[in-house]
Amino acid sequence: MKAFRDPIHNIILFDKNSEKILLKLIDTREFQRLRHIKQLGLSSFTYPGAEHSRFTHSLGVTHLMKRFLDKIISLKGDIDQKYIEDLSDNRILAETAALLHDIGHGPFSHALEKTTKIKHEKWTVEIILGSTEINSILEDYKPGFAREVADVIQRTHSSKAVVKLLSSQLDTDRIDYLLRDSKLTGAGYGSFDLEWMINCLRLGEVNDDIEVGLDLNKGFSIAEDFVMARYYMYVNVYFHKATRSAELIIDKIFERASELAKEEKTELPEDLHVILKELEKDPTNISLKDTVNNYLNLTDNTMWHYIWMWSKHSDQILSDLCARLIYRNFFKTVSVDDILGFYITAMNYYRELGIPDKYYLLRDQASSSSYKDHYILQKTKSEGKEEESEREASEQIFLFDEKGNVKELSNISGIISQIRNKNILIERVFLPDEHKTKLLGG
Amino acid sequence: MKAFRDPIHNIILFDKNSEKILLKLIDTREFQRLRHIKQLGLSSFTYPGAEHSRFTHSLGVTHLMKRFLDKIISLKGDIDQKYIEDLSDNRILAETAALLHDIGHGPFSHALEKTTKIKHEKWTVEIILGSTEINSILEDYKPGFAREVADVIQRTHSSKAVVKLLSSQLDTDRIDYLLRDSKLTGAGYGSFDLEWMINCLRLGEVNDDIEVGLDLNKGFSIAEDFVMARYYMYVNVYFHKATRSAELIIDKIFERASELAKEEKTELPEDLHVILKELEKDPTNISLKDTVNNYLNLTDNTMWHYIWMWSKHSDQILSDLCARLIYRNFFKTVSVDDILGFYITAMNYYRELGIPDKYYLLRDQASSSSYKDHYILQKTKSEGKEEESEREASEQIFLFDEKGNVKELSNISGIISQIRNKNILIERVFLPDEHKTKLLGG
Amino acid sequence: MKAFRDPIHNIILFDKNSEKILLKLIDTREFQRLRHIKQLGLSSFTYPGAEHSRFTHSLGVTHLMKRFLDKIISLKGDIDQKYIEDLSDNRILAETAALLHDIGHGPFSHALEKTTKIKHEKWTVEIILGSTEINSILEDYKPGFAREVADVIQRTHSSKAVVKLLSSQLDTDRIDYLLRDSKLTGAGYGSFDLEWMINCLRLGEVNDDIEVGLDLNKGFSIAEDFVMARYYMYVNVYFHKATRSAELIIDKIFERASELAKEEKTELPEDLHVILKELEKDPTNISLKDTVNNYLNLTDNTMWHYIWMWSKHSDQILSDLCARLIYRNFFKTVSVDDILGFYITAMNYYRELGIPDKYYLLRDQASSSSYKDHYILQKTKSEGKEEESEREASEQIFLFDEKGNVKELSNISGIISQIRNKNILIERVFLPDEHKTKLLGG
Amino acid sequence: MKAFRDPIHNIILFDKNSEKILLKLIDTREFQRLRHIKQLGLSSFTYPGAEHSRFTHSLGVTHLMKRFLDKIISLKGDIDQKYIEDLSDNRILAETAALLHDIGHGPFSHALEKTTKIKHEKWTVEIILGSTEINSILEDYKPGFAREVADVIQRTHSSKAVVKLLSSQLDTDRIDYLLRDSKLTGAGYGSFDLEWMINCLRLGEVNDDIEVGLDLNKGFSIAEDFVMARYYMYVNVYFHKATRSAELIIDKIFERASELAKEEKTELPEDLHVILKELEKDPTNISLKDTVNNYLNLTDNTMWHYIWMWSKHSDQILSDLCARLIYRNFFKTVSVDDILGFYITAMNYYRELGIPDKYYLLRDQASSSSYKDHYILQKTKSEGKEEESEREASEQIFLFDEKGNVKELSNISGIISQIRNKNILIERVFLPDEHKTKLLGG
Repeated sequence: MKAFRDPIHNIILFDKNSEKILLKLIDTREFQRLRHIKQLGLSSFTYPGAEHSRFTHSLGVTHLMKRFLDKIISLKGDIDQKYIEDLSDNRILAETAALLHDIGHGPFSHALEKTTKIKHEKWTVEIILGSTEINSILEDYKPGFAREVADVIQRTHSSKAVVKLLSSQLDTDRIDYLLRDSKLTGAGYGSFDLEWMINCLRLGEVNDDIEVGLDLNKGFSIAEDFVMARYYMYVNVYFHKATRSAELIIDKIFERASELAKEEKTELPEDLHVILKELEKDPTNISLKDTVNNYLNLTDNTMWHYIWMWSKHSDQILSDLCARLIYRNFFKTVSVDDILGFYITAMNYYRELGIPDKYYLLRDQASSSSYKDHYILQKTKSEGKEEESEREASEQIFLFDEKGNVKELSNISGIISQIRNKNILIERVFLPDEHKTKLLGG
Repeated sequence: MKAFRDPIHNIILFDKNSEKILLKLIDTREFQRLRHIKQLGLSSFTYPGAEHSRFTHSLGVTHLMKRFLDKIISLKGDIDQKYIEDLSDNRILAETAALLHDIGHGPFSHALEKTTKIKHEKWTVEIILGSTEINSILEDYKPGFAREVADVIQRTHSSKAVVKLLSSQLDTDRIDYLLRDSKLTGAGYGSFDLEWMINCLRLGEVNDDIEVGLDLNKGFSIAEDFVMARYYMYVNVYFHKATRSAELIIDKIFERASELAKEEKTELPEDLHVILKELEKDPTNISLKDTVNNYLNLTDNTMWHYIWMWSKHSDQILSDLCARLIYRNFFKTVSVDDILGFYITAMNYYRELGIPDKYYLLRDQASSSSYKDHYILQKTKSEGKEEESEREASEQIFLFDEKGNVKELSNISGIISQIRNKNILIERVFLPDEHKTKLLGG
Repeated sequence: MKAFRDPIHNIILFDKNSEKILLKLIDTREFQRLRHIKQLGLSSFTYPGAEHSRFTHSLGVTHLMKRFLDKIISLKGDIDQKYIEDLSDNRILAETAALLHDIGHGPFSHALEKTTKIKHEKWTVEIILGSTEINSILEDYKPGFAREVADVIQRTHSSKAVVKLLSSQLDTDRIDYLLRDSKLTGAGYGSFDLEWMINCLRLGEVNDDIEVGLDLNKGFSIAEDFVMARYYMYVNVYFHKATRSAELIIDKIFERASELAKEEKTELPEDLHVILKELEKDPTNISLKDTVNNYLNLTDNTMWHYIWMWSKHSDQILSDLCARLIYRNFFKTVSVDDILGFYITAMNYYRELGIPDKYYLLRDQASSSSYKDHYILQKTKSEGKEEESEREASEQIFLFDEKGNVKELSNISGIISQIRNKNILIERVFLPDEHKTKLLGG
Repeated sequence: MKAFRDPIHNIILFDKNSEKILLKLIDTREFQRLRHIKQLGLSSFTYPGAEHSRFTHSLGVTHLMKRFLDKIISLKGDIDQKYIEDLSDNRILAETAALLHDIGHGPFSHALEKTTKIKHEKWTVEIILGSTEINSILEDYKPGFAREVADVIQRTHSSKAVVKLLSSQLDTDRIDYLLRDSKLTGAGYGSFDLEWMINCLRLGEVNDDIEVGLDLNKGFSIAEDFVMARYYMYVNVYFHKATRSAELIIDKIFERASELAKEEKTELPEDLHVILKELEKDPTNISLKDTVNNYLNLTDNTMWHYIWMWSKHSDQILSDLCARLIYRNFFKTVSVDDILGFYITAMNYYRELGIPDKYYLLRDQASSSSYKDHYILQKTKSEGKEEESEREASEQIFLFDEKGNVKELSNISGIISQIRNKNILIERVFLPDEHKTKLLGG
């Protein structure tokens, strides 16, 4: 047994024989790279404890996947045996997909996605299917296995139970990140009783489809509590105004640096430069094949190294934005009733002073619902092609009674139906404190 | 009140009026830089959860300093009033010193100290006294205040109680790091009952000197438990063989890169290059004045950026060592009875094969005692000049009875006297797995 | 300082000088008696860990009262100074009322109240104002102080902030019992972030009245989370069907024993006998003066001693009911759609067999709302006289913005308005398993 | 699955099929009785949170037994297969013995043992082998099974691994009570990392005998930490002076009541009376057969009921001692260098005043070692006959390296050898505060 210690799950074990493939995957360059990418990007500016990486989260999801599978498989007798067999047969597949589900994330995900116009999910698939150490290990294990893993992550695999254990309303991914983010930020909101949830796990059929759910009697409260925990984490942590402000600034840093790079007024990180060059070649037929190894060189470290250097760049905008991030001197949000009115007033003020509003007057719409999960959806929503190859995550939590009858949580919980009907939509305008003061008074 | 959430202390509060100076110091570039330096350096390779920075640790120590002061000041009546007044008068000084005590730490402390031959304590003093934002804020607060803060950190300040609250056998620094490192590594060894310890705090006189200690009756067990907690953390976490191996490799990476840089075969990070150049000018009269701002640009990010790039360098040794760190493919330790004999055999084997043993056969002596605190001492021990300006931390834990009589822990605890008399000394030889196998068999 | 260790608050401190009165009150026979009365009555049959007494809860509420007062008093400047002064002046009063708020509770509260037809609140007042050790200590402290303490507990005291800190929607009583019951049952539902709640505490004016509330921005989520925590504890713990069944059985045991006692077919506990005799004398003018010391002799121990003895009584009904409690062989609930129809069918079945339905067919309506607090209200609701001398607890949670403007939680939270509008009402019929099986099949 | 919630282990599950016998045993009158016997007797006078019963502890030990067995059985391959088979075959036996290991405990164990001169271990055996519900269930399960269970508890069973999992230096009994007592007292000393301990479990051979031990490398620190945890719990909790004082008083209460009962000046609890009468018949040939059901009626409740009543008894000594317990007005200990000298002085003072020193001047020797386990041993030590039928618990912790070689903890740990060589021996004299003051001054 190989043991990893973990602040959330205490001990994460892998069997050196039966789970050898997982240990090999962990040892790849591609997976070790996740140590250098923070799970919550810039949230540690707001919650200093949130310094954990995607590496520990990925181990945590894999650990939960094993616990979920153990529990569900032990329920044999209560449900159609074919599902149990399917899960038993696909154990290693499920664990592998859990381990690799975030493998394509880059540093400051959103900013990099905006700059390159490539979603991290595309990189995930490329890393699994392309010419990488990970792909070799997967194919060594079983020819075609890489494709299966990618299918689970893209939600197109035929084993629907496995797909749902990784991405649905009640999946191992979000359970790990809620608990981990909650404990490490120190914000208690995201906590819920994991042990009781696992104890209440059920499999059942809904419309001839397999679903992971909870026991109706025992699991009703934990289902509500879990949805509420996510809701609180969105409102208080993920959508915190200072974090959003930092994220907008980093978007703008890369936008500016790319502009300057085109004019040859600054250097981008070499690997990012290669990627952008390649993309320019033929934007209508993007292949990531030739650049995946460049992408795999990009970590938070390189990005921060450049931000640190750019903070002394001769371009005023670039150096100012970088210094703001380093100093934690973010843009401020305004609390006015007429956001749009303020925005227009500010635009005019900027134009008079000749300040580029593109960089200094930023609109933000943070939107999600904690029941319908935009955390996943927002990244696939506006895409065309991707949608063909990826299915949306299931948005419902199912509760099964002793006879196997099913209820959907939001239909029987007034609280959850409340949340469902009111999306979280936080609309903000951000600008430097000095301009805010001039416009609104001190 | 400004509130920081924290996974260890939950909420860390600063009063926006009375503690304004602390908030200003936190907002400096120098302090924000600590976000980018991991508290435990390379330990996260062994304990993946140990990803926390010196930033959160510094906030934690400041928080504990406040709690310790609150408790001790509330004990008025039991001890000589002058000490209480001294502590009350020096509250902000104590908190400021707590906040800044690690400000001079660089990335991968030891490796950088070896490369530059400058201890991080010297940088700490320079950052506090030199031409920095921090110095301005301190001097703005009160002329001469920067000098006072440096004196507390160097243990030469006249207010001995303040000095001891920051560095002694029972100080806020090590209490925070033990709890934090223990919780975030997930290794339970370092935990002890902080609330009970604070409840047992006492001030007393020992040889006409003020000492922070514990109540003899109530505090005896917690005193032992605390010393044991440190001992376990050393043996299991700080001196873990994989972590030591990683630390040795990083030493060697910088050694190799410096060699190559002298031959102009590679580039060092610009700011490191400037520092080394400056040091070469006049090694007998080192001034950090001109390079402190270069030093302040060095973070884990830049170091990792270079390690990543060097992993593709044309120099075989440099690229191999960097790749080993990135891949977590460290050197292995051997468990043989005759370490020296093995070392000599290995040397001969290397010479035959033409492998440079300087880089591929590494000896390590991790030594400490958990009662006599080498964690601090090792860094000041072998120096000449520093010792004049810095005092050693007090190495004893005092226990006071109701009448103020004092006992020293190791004199009355068989367990602690055991630990005291046997230093932790772990001697190891590290080498690549392939050579180990050839020398010792699989 | 006198320190009590506590599984919830870790250390509970009392100052031996300024809080001497509290230490004296704890040492009275009346207060020590609370060690022998379980906080959750019969819940430990369902949640075995719930074995804690009203003694530890009372210490916990006092501890929270001190923490709340410390926080609120430190807010000086933000609110009208007169309230702060009022609270500062009434510190000891508030703490004393917190310590004594449950002093009148008897064993298995509800059952004893049904048997004697006297609410525990009346005993509380008698113990504080009557001829008891507690009364002596209170009057020694300050003449008239006993009356003041009773007024706070009855919510008629002029210092409304103190009243509200002890009984309102957001009071120290329910905060302690939720955390304590949650942790000791092992049911995670009741947990919430106490530290953050205290950090968000605010005082403000609502309709010219002082209210304890929370900061609107920081405290909104914790306010919701807290109300939800209570809601889950009601549904899953306090109203658990097995616990309710046990409570109904104990009601019936005392009903039967009283019947038999009247016919001189059994003995009641001596002190209970005295109380019942005294009450018979003049039911229109009940005085507790002569029986308060009998009441103070009644603990869970004596009740259980009798239940144990009665389990061998010659009366079949009494011995059967007692054995059921001892063996944990409770009545079962039925899940049918037409509860009333079932009830009638069962009645007929019972009559045929000659089984007394009064003892063997029990209806239960557990009702509460977790926002409007019936946990307190249900005990004063149906009374005539009491209502004149007691005010209802405030049912709202107020949130204050920076300018002191107030919002009421259920007006701005869709989730809480949901809960508010739907009372928890659980209607059940209980009967022995053997009859349930015959009526409904196995 | 039947689930119990628990404050220590969170969820304790029993399989309704394979572990049906355990669920049946829990439902017996004999086992339900454990709800009414506090695990720590009178410790809650000192640590108010320590209100937990032997019922929850017994469930906890059973739960740990299952986890230990799961772990050890999963180690197959590393050790001689016959031991694994033996453990697999004896799973239910091990769990049953864990559940019933404390079944013979009476209220205030020591006091009752002194009064009746019968050890609780004898009652345990009688309850298992005699005419009880438990015996029926055991024999129904398999003829001869009751004898097997008794053998495991008495450490004479041939399956030594099972015996050692229940009583040895590293057994499920003490692991549960340390964690439980530590958490519920609120005294942090007893905590250690259970998960890591289970992860380090090993089976091995020592002198041709099977032993449960730990992995030498991974488990060395947790082994030390565990022994230290016990040591701290003894010194701070189990041997706390106030708790010892209460225990001595209760001894004396029963001694006095028995004296008075012989003179027919008071009544004892009926069932206790029957037991004592039976014992008088033929003290040389004690049989518990006829009184086991009387013993099973004795709980803390009945004892407290009598103490409460006796606090008003006409005998001054009896009523005074009972009132002292109820009021928590215990005898005080003296801290003088010459304990024996003080004792003689006090004797003379008492004789002059005519106070019976037998009841008011009490000597106490609390002795144990936290490595050699007197907690168990003290109860069997001085007996003759018992020793023939019971073996002493193994007193060592074994550590196994990869090759199966064994080291004994105290031979390789300086810390543990320290503890081993110095027994904890706390010698005290207790007397009423008023006499202490007169003898020693205020």
